[in-house]
Amino acid sequence: MIQFETRERDVIGLGRLCIDLNANEIHRPMEETRTFTKYVGGSPANIAIGAQRLGLSAGFIGKVSDDQMGRYIVNYLEEQGIDTSNVVTDKTGAVTGLAFTEILSPEDCSILMYRDNVADLLLAPSEVSEAYVASAKCLLLSGTALASSPSREAVFVALTYANKHNTKVVFDLDYRPYTWKSMEETAVYYRLAAEKCDVIVGTREEFDVMETFSEVKGDDQQTAREWLSHQAELVVIKHGQDGSKAYEKDGTTYRSGVYPSNVLKTFGAGDAYASAFIYGLLQGWNAEQAMSFGSASASIVISRHSCSEAMPTVADIEELMQTTTAK
Amino acid sequence: MIQFETRERDVIGLGRLCIDLNANEIHRPMEETRTFTKYVGGSPANIAIGAQRLGLSAGFIGKVSDDQMGRYIVNYLEEQGIDTSNVVTDKTGAVTGLAFTEILSPEDCSILMYRDNVADLLLAPSEVSEAYVASAKCLLLSGTALASSPSREAVFVALTYANKHNTKVVFDLDYRPYTWKSMEETAVYYRLAAEKCDVIVGTREEFDVMETFSEVKGDDQQTAREWLSHQAELVVIKHGQDGSKAYEKDGTTYRSGVYPSNVLKTFGAGDAYASAFIYGLLQGWNAEQAMSFGSASASIVISRHSCSEAMPTVADIEELMQTTTAK
Amino acid sequence: MIQFETRERDVIGLGRLCIDLNANEIHRPMEETRTFTKYVGGSPANIAIGAQRLGLSAGFIGKVSDDQMGRYIVNYLEEQGIDTSNVVTDKTGAVTGLAFTEILSPEDCSILMYRDNVADLLLAPSEVSEAYVASAKCLLLSGTALASSPSREAVFVALTYANKHNTKVVFDLDYRPYTWKSMEETAVYYRLAAEKCDVIVGTREEFDVMETFSEVKGDDQQTAREWLSHQAELVVIKHGQDGSKAYEKDGTTYRSGVYPSNVLKTFGAGDAYASAFIYGLLQGWNAEQAMSFGSASASIVISRHSCSEAMPTVADIEELMQTTTAK
Amino acid sequence: MIQFETRERDVIGLGRLCIDLNANEIHRPMEETRTFTKYVGGSPANIAIGAQRLGLSAGFIGKVSDDQMGRYIVNYLEEQGIDTSNVVTDKTGAVTGLAFTEILSPEDCSILMYRDNVADLLLAPSEVSEAYVASAKCLLLSGTALASSPSREAVFVALTYANKHNTKVVFDLDYRPYTWKSMEETAVYYRLAAEKCDVIVGTREEFDVMETFSEVKGDDQQTAREWLSHQAELVVIKHGQDGSKAYEKDGTTYRSGVYPSNVLKTFGAGDAYASAFIYGLLQGWNAEQAMSFGSASASIVISRHSCSEAMPTVADIEELMQTTTAK
Repeated sequence: MIQFETRERDVIGLGRLCIDLNANEIHRPMEETRTFTKYVGGSPANIAIGAQRLGLSAGFIGKVSDDQMGRYIVNYLEEQGIDTSNVVTDKTGAVTGLAFTEILSPEDCSILMYRDNVADLLLAPSEVSEAYVASAKCLLLSGTALASSPSREAVFVALTYANKHNTKVVFDLDYRPYTWKSMEETAVYYRLAAEKCDVIVGTREEFDVMETFSEVKGDDQQTAREWLSHQAELVVIKHGQDGSKAYEKDGTTYRSGVYPSNVLKTFGAGDAYASAFIYGLLQGWNAEQAMSFGSASASIVISRHSCSEAMPTVADIEELMQTTTAK
Repeated sequence: MIQFETRERDVIGLGRLCIDLNANEIHRPMEETRTFTKYVGGSPANIAIGAQRLGLSAGFIGKVSDDQMGRYIVNYLEEQGIDTSNVVTDKTGAVTGLAFTEILSPEDCSILMYRDNVADLLLAPSEVSEAYVASAKCLLLSGTALASSPSREAVFVALTYANKHNTKVVFDLDYRPYTWKSMEETAVYYRLAAEKCDVIVGTREEFDVMETFSEVKGDDQQTAREWLSHQAELVVIKHGQDGSKAYEKDGTTYRSGVYPSNVLKTFGAGDAYASAFIYGLLQGWNAEQAMSFGSASASIVISRHSCSEAMPTVADIEELMQTTTAK
Repeated sequence: MIQFETRERDVIGLGRLCIDLNANEIHRPMEETRTFTKYVGGSPANIAIGAQRLGLSAGFIGKVSDDQMGRYIVNYLEEQGIDTSNVVTDKTGAVTGLAFTEILSPEDCSILMYRDNVADLLLAPSEVSEAYVASAKCLLLSGTALASSPSREAVFVALTYANKHNTKVVFDLDYRPYTWKSMEETAVYYRLAAEKCDVIVGTREEFDVMETFSEVKGDDQQTAREWLSHQAELVVIKHGQDGSKAYEKDGTTYRSGVYPSNVLKTFGAGDAYASAFIYGLLQGWNAEQAMSFGSASASIVISRHSCSEAMPTVADIEELMQTTTAK
Repeated sequence: MIQFETRERDVIGLGRLCIDLNANEIHRPMEETRTFTKYVGGSPANIAIGAQRLGLSAGFIGKVSDDQMGRYIVNYLEEQGIDTSNVVTDKTGAVTGLAFTEILSPEDCSILMYRDNVADLLLAPSEVSEAYVASAKCLLLSGTALASSPSREAVFVALTYANKHNTKVVFDLDYRPYTWKSMEETAVYYRLAAEKCDVIVGTREEFDVMETFSEVKGDDQQTAREWLSHQAELVVIKHGQDGSKAYEKDGTTYRSGVYPSNVLKTFGAGDAYASAFIYGLLQGWNAEQAMSFGSASASIVISRHSCSEAMPTVADIEELMQTTTAK
């Protein structure tokens, strides 16, 4: 059980603020779709929105483009009740990242990304406020924010502040290969960041990338031992349809299953999981309870058309958990 | 009257192949729109589509991204009957340029561009086929293709081939400031290209940019004299609602008015004009007749939601010209 | 015979201002040399220095770094009597290009270049003065100035001014592969520039590069015909030890031999040739006389340690021509 | 006292391998110098050379250009007896960094750097051998290697290996502002590296840069406390003419003075200090003895013309220490 400080704000997201353009015509290749619906997207944005939907008070540290897309994002976050006082506006002519989604079938989804010259990766170290980091119980770091400078340096400054003030850091690995120059580069910065985080959540494949330069190879026990030997108190390794495993510093291990769902698309599962999992931790639940709550949330989002808009309420999740059994 | 060679193909477009994402909800800022419809776009693409719609046989020299957007563009051009044998697919991971359009009111429209790392500007000199350039009566050059390397060099190679084989070059200035580093750079390359073109079409403001390093300042007569002193046989200067003026090498001057329209948005007027104007020249009409046909086409497109899809047929244009009087 | 206007200044060099660092210990690989002597270098700098040494009045349009190297160059040019009023100082932190020379044997010399972030290629169009271009009989353009932006655009602006004011342009092709992205790119910009020049001087290999996109292949007659069909009045093709050929617009052809020399190194031959050749043209000599004078000058420079410092006087050249017979 | 493992090799340098071009004519501005002498340079190269001169067995992990400069560096290191089996040759066309030195007076020296596209900063993570790092008692890290990717990532991989195998890491801050984008960026990566080092050596000003995001401001005690709270066992803060202070984990503090010298130039003092200081630590001396030895070495190098060539032997240093008293 993670002990959080008493703070003004529950959770602050750090990193990507993007736009999803989801094809309205599904079950066909994007070459044949004609219309798209616009949503706020980006993993930490989705998680912050999900957290707020669950009743937490969320804030965000990020950067948006100085155009209609950037203003749309800020407006949307504010409508959700999320604090945007630390979302800054780029002045260099950068754009907002885009994700065009294609839903061929429930199992076969793909994303076409626009990630050149994006505002979110221009967040600078000087734009991270120590007081703001210190105002929250928990900082949610998404790995993509480490992909390039100056956002990469902004993350390390935020981690320094968080560690100093005992703001717990949840690191969602969120590895997106297209934003990185090489897997080696990812491994180096993921490792440097992970050593300063309190909770690390990722898929088995994401941990493998982070462990490129170590001898841990695909073994959950060794992975847990490696990262718990640094600051981490809790390591969660996700195995897709096979559920998740959690490892605590004292050796306690938990397992959690997956809730069956009427799958529309696979996007957003991880973000829904993370927001509900953080909710659970903040309630003082043990890792197993938090993981189950996360799994249920993921199950709901993958049955809906969007990611951010689709984030469930506590009631939604509880209803599912009461009516369905995890496998 | 421009004398065209007898050739297999009427017109080949050269340059930009993009996607327009037009807001479905109009008369509001893009911050408040939710859905977009996808169209093929880009000035020379629109002109080629417009020309084909008018019954000409069109081809294209260009480069598309190796993704769903690029494939959509090629599919669409082929459905229209346009020859895409010289549209090459990028292999570097470039994306397709995007234009999100916002229609606040008929007079107040804006475009949000995605132009970083776009495939169209990666067309290389070696990807321009001399035989293909030689197969057409006319090459349509859009100024944006000069905005950066290697597309810029590909344009000059295409002009060398066109001049050698007497393929007439129509240069639509199509000046888009956001794609250029400076107005000085634009002036240099527009000038170098214009000296090798047979027909030059642009707005008064576009000619002003091209004349940055000369003493011609906003005077149509001097502009005409300057460019007709090189290869050009015909110079068309557009003055928005005040119509167009055409100047021929022998001193003949023409004027043409504007057809009133139920304006929905201003996008696409220039492309519709250019395609119908080229159609007229290829029919052997004089510049006045071609300009009128161009104006009528423009009037139709600005009353419709898209650019490419909205390109009129000959019957559409003739109907308008019979029922309406140009001002 | 080229007819020059009556002007305040004889010749203005345009382009590269660099530093040569010549190994003092010769006939060994640079791995084994220990000391270097510093000279002003760069082809157009050498030509301007050579011209001034011959008694012409020379000026320069160029850009130097804001450091000891840049100041050394300007000081040296001024000491030679060259007008530096149009040599501007970079303010972006660019450096001066360097050429470390290695003299293994008279036949086997090589150069190690430092050409990243060099000041000379940052000359901007706005830094070219129309009045200054108009003040000279002749503008000496070195091809390397076309290698990248904004210097490339500055060259085209200078050519526009020169053509407008009938300042004769001598284009020394001076092709240096390491400064270019591709041979195709070179071919495109060399062609665009060559069409606007009055005298074109290059080796057979350099003309071959410029003719990448034409059908002329290694044939001097065709080369001459191609370029004389544009603005050029005189085309000089150099064949190394086999001497040079000159072609005039009216069909006159000249040949010139090579003066034997006690060769120390091959660097600087072309620059010595160009400066003496221009001297001859400005005296009203025919191309044959000018080429002979150029050959004799080249013969002197290749027997000396440096390029710029080694440029001969008229008396030096005349002495050689009286005592030696060209082959 | 640092406890080193028993290993095949004493010390491995990591990072910059450059060329110094020292003006032969001193006491004048570089604008007036004519000849330069070439030396191997770069802080970690100098330290490795200095260590080998003192009788240690040194190796190097680095990258050199594939040209005469790169080969000169490797040849020179080998002549000194340094192991170059882990010095790789760049294949991208990068150059060797240059430092032109100007000695106006003993107090007024400056360096003109060429650092664009340099080979040393292209060292990749995959080019760092775990076995090689594990073969040495000590790894010498110079801060400049952190200045850009991929060298930055290579450093972090080397630190991971060093920590894993208990190869002690000496971090010489060696802050060179011109190689960094911002002081914030330096602070971020210096901090991340310093947390993984065993000995940290720098000037007061260099520690200030590293502490940009902390509250330690110019206070040696606080600086020592901050870094000793991580892995470091020894922190050495240099105060120029006022000598150095050393802080150990157990609270022990040492001071060391400066040996008077007939100063020719200030370059190389830090590198001479570091090599002799490391020598002392490897002998098992306490920090005070090692610092004194370092100061004496520095005093010798600043009285000589070069840095690398000038590195003293143990006998040289001992002689000075016997005949002179530190202040």
